[in-house]
Amino acid sequence: MSQTHPSPICPVDLSAKLIQCPSVTPVEGGALVLLEDLLSDAGFTCTRVDREGIPNLYARWGGKGHAKTFGFNGHTDVVPVGDEAAWTKPPFCGEVEDGILWGRGATDMKTGVAAFAAAAVDFVRDKAPDGSVVLTITGDEEGDGDFGTVALLDWMDENDEAMSVCLVGEPTCPNHMGEMMKIGRRGSMSAWFTFTGKQGHAAYPHRANNPLPAMARLMDQLASHELDQGTDHFDPSTLAIVTMDTGNPANNVIPAKCTGAVNIRFNDTHTGQSLSDWLQTEANKVTAETGVEIDMTIKISGESFITPPGPLSDLVAKAVEAETGVSPDLSTTGGTSDARFVKAHCPVVEFGLVGKTMHQVDERIEVEQIHQLKAIYSRILADYFA
Amino acid sequence: MSQTHPSPICPVDLSAKLIQCPSVTPVEGGALVLLEDLLSDAGFTCTRVDREGIPNLYARWGGKGHAKTFGFNGHTDVVPVGDEAAWTKPPFCGEVEDGILWGRGATDMKTGVAAFAAAAVDFVRDKAPDGSVVLTITGDEEGDGDFGTVALLDWMDENDEAMSVCLVGEPTCPNHMGEMMKIGRRGSMSAWFTFTGKQGHAAYPHRANNPLPAMARLMDQLASHELDQGTDHFDPSTLAIVTMDTGNPANNVIPAKCTGAVNIRFNDTHTGQSLSDWLQTEANKVTAETGVEIDMTIKISGESFITPPGPLSDLVAKAVEAETGVSPDLSTTGGTSDARFVKAHCPVVEFGLVGKTMHQVDERIEVEQIHQLKAIYSRILADYFA
Repeated sequence: MSQTHPSPICPVDLSAKLIQCPSVTPVEGGALVLLEDLLSDAGFTCTRVDREGIPNLYARWGGKGHAKTFGFNGHTDVVPVGDEAAWTKPPFCGEVEDGILWGRGATDMKTGVAAFAAAAVDFVRDKAPDGSVVLTITGDEEGDGDFGTVALLDWMDENDEAMSVCLVGEPTCPNHMGEMMKIGRRGSMSAWFTFTGKQGHAAYPHRANNPLPAMARLMDQLASHELDQGTDHFDPSTLAIVTMDTGNPANNVIPAKCTGAVNIRFNDTHTGQSLSDWLQTEANKVTAETGVEIDMTIKISGESFITPPGPLSDLVAKAVEAETGVSPDLSTTGGTSDARFVKAHCPVVEFGLVGKTMHQVDERIEVEQIHQLKAIYSRILADYFA
Repeated sequence: MSQTHPSPICPVDLSAKLIQCPSVTPVEGGALVLLEDLLSDAGFTCTRVDREGIPNLYARWGGKGHAKTFGFNGHTDVVPVGDEAAWTKPPFCGEVEDGILWGRGATDMKTGVAAFAAAAVDFVRDKAPDGSVVLTITGDEEGDGDFGTVALLDWMDENDEAMSVCLVGEPTCPNHMGEMMKIGRRGSMSAWFTFTGKQGHAAYPHRANNPLPAMARLMDQLASHELDQGTDHFDPSTLAIVTMDTGNPANNVIPAKCTGAVNIRFNDTHTGQSLSDWLQTEANKVTAETGVEIDMTIKISGESFITPPGPLSDLVAKAVEAETGVSPDLSTTGGTSDARFVKAHCPVVEFGLVGKTMHQVDERIEVEQIHQLKAIYSRILADYFA
């Protein structure tokens, strides 16, 4: 019997090869093909779950529907390179120099995918665990995400595929390897308000209905309101007024219209709907006080979610500490990730390397971190199936 | 002895001749020369008090420094014609058709000047009163006014010239001849605010210092504050927020800066200085609460002033009622006029014709109103010197 992968897979080499695939969302760029080849050779059952031009890869080692199925989630798509001339090295070079791997996706998150793919392949080959290992890899995390991890999870439901737990390999450490994992996220929403009154001369305000005091009143009341004091695992929710605009150059004219917007980051005390209701109630009060009509448009980018500290976070934290000597904070900070979709499927946490240069020109990472990350993922698999 | 003006001067003919002088501020256009000729012929001592390119005319009949000196004030400059093609008749035609006199200045206020000049000339010729009649006519009321009536009053002070009382001949009637005279004006000022905080990500408001809540707070407090409840002759003072602007298109960004402006129309309860102090105090409170720096720029366009109801307003009101059958309201409403300068010199009120078309295309007036206005001014002179 021939041995397809006689020696451990180097996660740095694999990261470099993935970086060389120019997979800017929604282009596949060869990245998922490369992974599918690697995983198929290692005995994974691979399925491309492409939807609406978005490429996605599902890979399972072990039996379908096994009660003990460890899942990884990640993405191979990357954000655009921006000003290519500003890069020190070509953005898709995947070059290592002085212990640094350079290129778009070096932190977000071709390295994360390479680390968990390398760990998974080595682990199933060496240990043949009593259970299954599943990799869900999308080509649309940086875009709208409508046909990425969501499509993979839908397809899994339809086909009786499942993960018992899931680890998302996004970069989670602000400055030092190992310092932070994510167990949830605040929700995010925006509201845009248009205030409509009646134009007039500033000398005769009683003949006009000035929308500006209504905007000042509403915005002051929204910004002054304490949404909550935080919860066990979340900071207090925040509301930021992000703009107020009129564009009236004439200081003797009362304008007919003005606009304002707020952005809310909210914890598990709230939902997008409960906050929308609150905003509408406050707007209605101001309309009742002022006669100014207030139109509101809401966009809920994501609800808050959490996998409370427990077996999964313990498993990950223990592996991180063993490999780095650092006990990771269990955080709910930061922007959105596909964990918000996975949460509906199974317990999910996130752990990855230091994300300092993500989305920037000269995105890069120390190769040592990539080796550490593979070691952590390998230890997690070993402990999970132990 | 020859009689220079054997018959009464027709104020409509004089108005038409003045309209035919294209005296858009600061151009003299022949208007003051025409009046100087007329008044000199009638025995007035005339002095051109030109300053910094602005033409002004001072004319006195009777002895200098007489305790009983009736003064008129007006202007011959006019605002630009705007879109000349939009006029029904040429803007400087001074044409009468179907009882209507057409042209720029037909209401504001060549007709007013013609009416008081005609009344004054006829009166001194026919009655030779025991006292003096003074006409102060400027060529810069519609412009900045820095070297118009102000220069005339300065020159009068320097030369021991004076008016005991003064009637400004601006149009004062909103709709019907005789319905309103002005005994004062509200003051007007504007304040521009710049709020400077610290930019940041909307998800991490504690790392930024958002200037927008500071603006909302200050503007709400200014707009909610009752400045006063009005006084005997003034409506309550008003504050109008006229603009609030940020120009931030990104709903995940807290901006560093925003701006807002208010306009205040104030009665004799306040001064520009007392209101500036109040605004600064309120801004300081918000800075203390928020840490947001607030810069304020103030422009005081005019202080409030009043000539309380008394002999002068009684004199004018009685003449108006006698000639029109209407008892005029004693108002302090409306925009600024040169009465704000005259007020420092002597008691002053304003009365003139219906100003509906002032500053508009197709400025025009019924000739009947011009005859009425001369009759009113003539009666005022007769009653004053009776």
